[in-house]
Amino acid sequence: MIIIIQCKDQVGLVAGITNVMARFALNIVSLGEHVDKSNNRFFIRLNVEPTADANALKQELQHVLPDDAEIAINPLPEKKIVVLVTKEYHCLADILIRNYFSTLGAQVQAVIGNYDVLADVCRRFDVPFYHISHEGKEKPVFEEEIKQAIDNYQPDYLVLAKFMRILSPDFVASYPLQIINIHHSFLPAFIGANPYRQAYERGVKLIGATAHFVTNQLDEGPIITQQIIPINHALNVTDLTKAGKEIETAVLARALQLVFDDRVLVFQNKTVVFD
Amino acid sequence: MIIIIQCKDQVGLVAGITNVMARFALNIVSLGEHVDKSNNRFFIRLNVEPTADANALKQELQHVLPDDAEIAINPLPEKKIVVLVTKEYHCLADILIRNYFSTLGAQVQAVIGNYDVLADVCRRFDVPFYHISHEGKEKPVFEEEIKQAIDNYQPDYLVLAKFMRILSPDFVASYPLQIINIHHSFLPAFIGANPYRQAYERGVKLIGATAHFVTNQLDEGPIITQQIIPINHALNVTDLTKAGKEIETAVLARALQLVFDDRVLVFQNKTVVFD
Amino acid sequence: MIIIIQCKDQVGLVAGITNVMARFALNIVSLGEHVDKSNNRFFIRLNVEPTADANALKQELQHVLPDDAEIAINPLPEKKIVVLVTKEYHCLADILIRNYFSTLGAQVQAVIGNYDVLADVCRRFDVPFYHISHEGKEKPVFEEEIKQAIDNYQPDYLVLAKFMRILSPDFVASYPLQIINIHHSFLPAFIGANPYRQAYERGVKLIGATAHFVTNQLDEGPIITQQIIPINHALNVTDLTKAGKEIETAVLARALQLVFDDRVLVFQNKTVVFD
Amino acid sequence: MIIIIQCKDQVGLVAGITNVMARFALNIVSLGEHVDKSNNRFFIRLNVEPTADANALKQELQHVLPDDAEIAINPLPEKKIVVLVTKEYHCLADILIRNYFSTLGAQVQAVIGNYDVLADVCRRFDVPFYHISHEGKEKPVFEEEIKQAIDNYQPDYLVLAKFMRILSPDFVASYPLQIINIHHSFLPAFIGANPYRQAYERGVKLIGATAHFVTNQLDEGPIITQQIIPINHALNVTDLTKAGKEIETAVLARALQLVFDDRVLVFQNKTVVFD
Repeated sequence: MIIIIQCKDQVGLVAGITNVMARFALNIVSLGEHVDKSNNRFFIRLNVEPTADANALKQELQHVLPDDAEIAINPLPEKKIVVLVTKEYHCLADILIRNYFSTLGAQVQAVIGNYDVLADVCRRFDVPFYHISHEGKEKPVFEEEIKQAIDNYQPDYLVLAKFMRILSPDFVASYPLQIINIHHSFLPAFIGANPYRQAYERGVKLIGATAHFVTNQLDEGPIITQQIIPINHALNVTDLTKAGKEIETAVLARALQLVFDDRVLVFQNKTVVFD
Repeated sequence: MIIIIQCKDQVGLVAGITNVMARFALNIVSLGEHVDKSNNRFFIRLNVEPTADANALKQELQHVLPDDAEIAINPLPEKKIVVLVTKEYHCLADILIRNYFSTLGAQVQAVIGNYDVLADVCRRFDVPFYHISHEGKEKPVFEEEIKQAIDNYQPDYLVLAKFMRILSPDFVASYPLQIINIHHSFLPAFIGANPYRQAYERGVKLIGATAHFVTNQLDEGPIITQQIIPINHALNVTDLTKAGKEIETAVLARALQLVFDDRVLVFQNKTVVFD
Repeated sequence: MIIIIQCKDQVGLVAGITNVMARFALNIVSLGEHVDKSNNRFFIRLNVEPTADANALKQELQHVLPDDAEIAINPLPEKKIVVLVTKEYHCLADILIRNYFSTLGAQVQAVIGNYDVLADVCRRFDVPFYHISHEGKEKPVFEEEIKQAIDNYQPDYLVLAKFMRILSPDFVASYPLQIINIHHSFLPAFIGANPYRQAYERGVKLIGATAHFVTNQLDEGPIITQQIIPINHALNVTDLTKAGKEIETAVLARALQLVFDDRVLVFQNKTVVFD
Repeated sequence: MIIIIQCKDQVGLVAGITNVMARFALNIVSLGEHVDKSNNRFFIRLNVEPTADANALKQELQHVLPDDAEIAINPLPEKKIVVLVTKEYHCLADILIRNYFSTLGAQVQAVIGNYDVLADVCRRFDVPFYHISHEGKEKPVFEEEIKQAIDNYQPDYLVLAKFMRILSPDFVASYPLQIINIHHSFLPAFIGANPYRQAYERGVKLIGATAHFVTNQLDEGPIITQQIIPINHALNVTDLTKAGKEIETAVLARALQLVFDDRVLVFQNKTVVFD
């Protein structure tokens, strides 16, 4: 059972929380704790065994925690997700494979594409694919169609697996801290379009990818994880794009694993990741 | 104040320990915890503020812990070390520089070399250098001379900064878990002499270095940290050796930082590193 | 057009070869060259444009090269491969996805498994799957059945994508430098079975994977590429195995890309990789 | 002997150049070649043995190259450098150590500091230190004093080893492509002041360092090399700064090695690095 808590910091929080665990005869398999001193904020993640009644546990925890405490007790055995794509296959295919072999830590309910090029690969894995084109539509109409497709499934998270349209503030506000995006640069470098071209023009010696929660500041949401690979002068924009796909796939896979394992807590515009 | 504890695992340990912290009005700045389930062993490291009487704290902790508990409460404000070297300068010079600028986390009391080539660099930093040659001596005589030089200083740790002689079981037993060595391969690959030649002959695509505590099994002691660098066919043995020095220096520096910060706990032949 | 050559080293080889290119009006887009001085061996890889008659070019090259020269002029537009598997899906699925989206640099002709658990995923991608069980058979019989399945396709390479049976010297000899294996450790550490258990027991701080050509020395063939990931004390054998699958997939994918792009030359037991 | 050439691209350049080598009976130990197709620019680096008259060789090369060719034939056995610092010791100390043990590939002629805190460590290595304060001076006066100190030594390169003053266009123009800086971020992220604070505020999961040639666009000159290290939420600005020093030291050391080995060619605002 995973328990994650954040609240304002004060003396005795760990003792209070772990006393509750002891009273419920829960053994602490692992414990991650962080205090953000500049914000006086306390974060904890506990993996406990065997298990207990979540409501009773939550009630007891509330007695030892400040009023502002946010407590989550492993709400679902497994997350449900909807994936949004455009034309590139690499991130989606990785998700579909893990989903098919039950190693994703979540269930892919559906895939939505603004082109239909990835419909066939979804069909091969018996995953519903919705082709919702953005062409010839006002953005609110386009997004409303997407929302309707999503809301059938009540997913825990939306995964933007190289979805190349910018979502409106209204859309984003409908899924607060539920939208995970993969950006093809080591943010904050190369915000916006064509990061590989920007990287090529600048002559950098490494390229990267960033998985982050989507907020209404483009490419500015809380970062979940980032990785880079070294490159050199011999790679042109096409080569960089190709090399970048490998790191994008790896970074998104890692971010999803962290989120689906309840290892990522968000406060303001930053994450605490207990890995 | 750093508190590190290891003992057999049982329910309620974290609660018991953190209750003691609360009673002493100690705030937990950071907490690392690990349970080795295959050995039923519990490990914890706490960084607490402000401070308390170490003896009183230890006594209270003993009441909530099993009898076998090993408790260390940040025993010294700063560690004292003696460094053993042969001819290569890179690890020693890095240590001397950090020592001189007070960023090592320990004080270098003396350097002992079985050659005198590194005497001058020690002199430049006003660090005592003992030239104790192994030539023409039985090993027990050689080691007894080293011991006498060391024991003037009562160091917390001995650092083998590319000391190229194998120490006898008797010598090692005199400094249990106090001797830190840098080995020039990613152990357990290339145990023994000439790892860079071995790496070259085998045609590996990465080389590494390993910092470990010394035990009486050659190159088999508990590993503190390891890193690697990618290499390619163009590097001959000389090139590998040169490239390797960079990673050796970095790995030893990292290991010393971890040990001097009380982040490394040892159980049987493995380490728990709270970084 | 890719041209790869290896021969004994002598003065003027690059001039001789590039003169031939100039006579055929071939522009050198990229050129990688290596001299193994300890073996007096010369290696070169040229990427030239536009194109020329391969036979005529080869004949001219032979005039400027020593008699022992091995010359390959991009023999096929695309390689053909057969993949051998046991039960683990991760490497195979990655290959099938790249094959389906035509980014593998080779065509998967068939998959052979000694269990049938991966039959379904192959079927979903319309790739023939042969279930050839090793159970209740002498090894020569088992291998003969595999050979027959393979030889229908005349593949350029066999890829052992977590094929967990040791192949006999006879089998290996039938496909010299054509069998590529992924081994789940940073060789030469942890040769043989259960490398993740070995890594756990030893308490290493990094685990890796190695892609290599198969020879009759188990896990001793020429290494194509290797990578590692950092690990820590919190990971048990199951966790290491899971984490290792990510790096195995990445390393095999990278090795196949290098081989299929004609970037890997083999001499004795080592590779020269022009990347 | 190292030969580096850049010029506009055309068919037959490699043949022409290597024919000259053959005529001078020079054996090509290694050869790196690059064509920047978007700029139609050719780059080559040759390491040849034994040696030849540089002027005669250059003349012959000019006959086979376009008029715009820039040819450098290993102009000096060893480079001379002057190092500029402010207060931080880590990059300077690394340079001084390598200089003292003759592994820098260059000779440190002098160190110039706008504070005097690093005077003592220079004195310990018998390297002249000039304390030239910027306080109470107009920038042109300050820079003129620095120039005079530098020009005594006619160095090949100036190394800004954490020199925290912005140099004027006039100063920079006096040393074109001769000034190497270490910037404490993975450029182009976090240009300007306090990159570690910027990194902390943004919540990135990796920090880096960039070595580059200085031009009159702040932090925008040609990048020589970059590296990153992973970080997490537990590190505050002070921790990031401390961790960053390790990577700054490593990146600057690597960049200097590349430049001093004549491995770095510059065209427009980018580098070609033959490593």
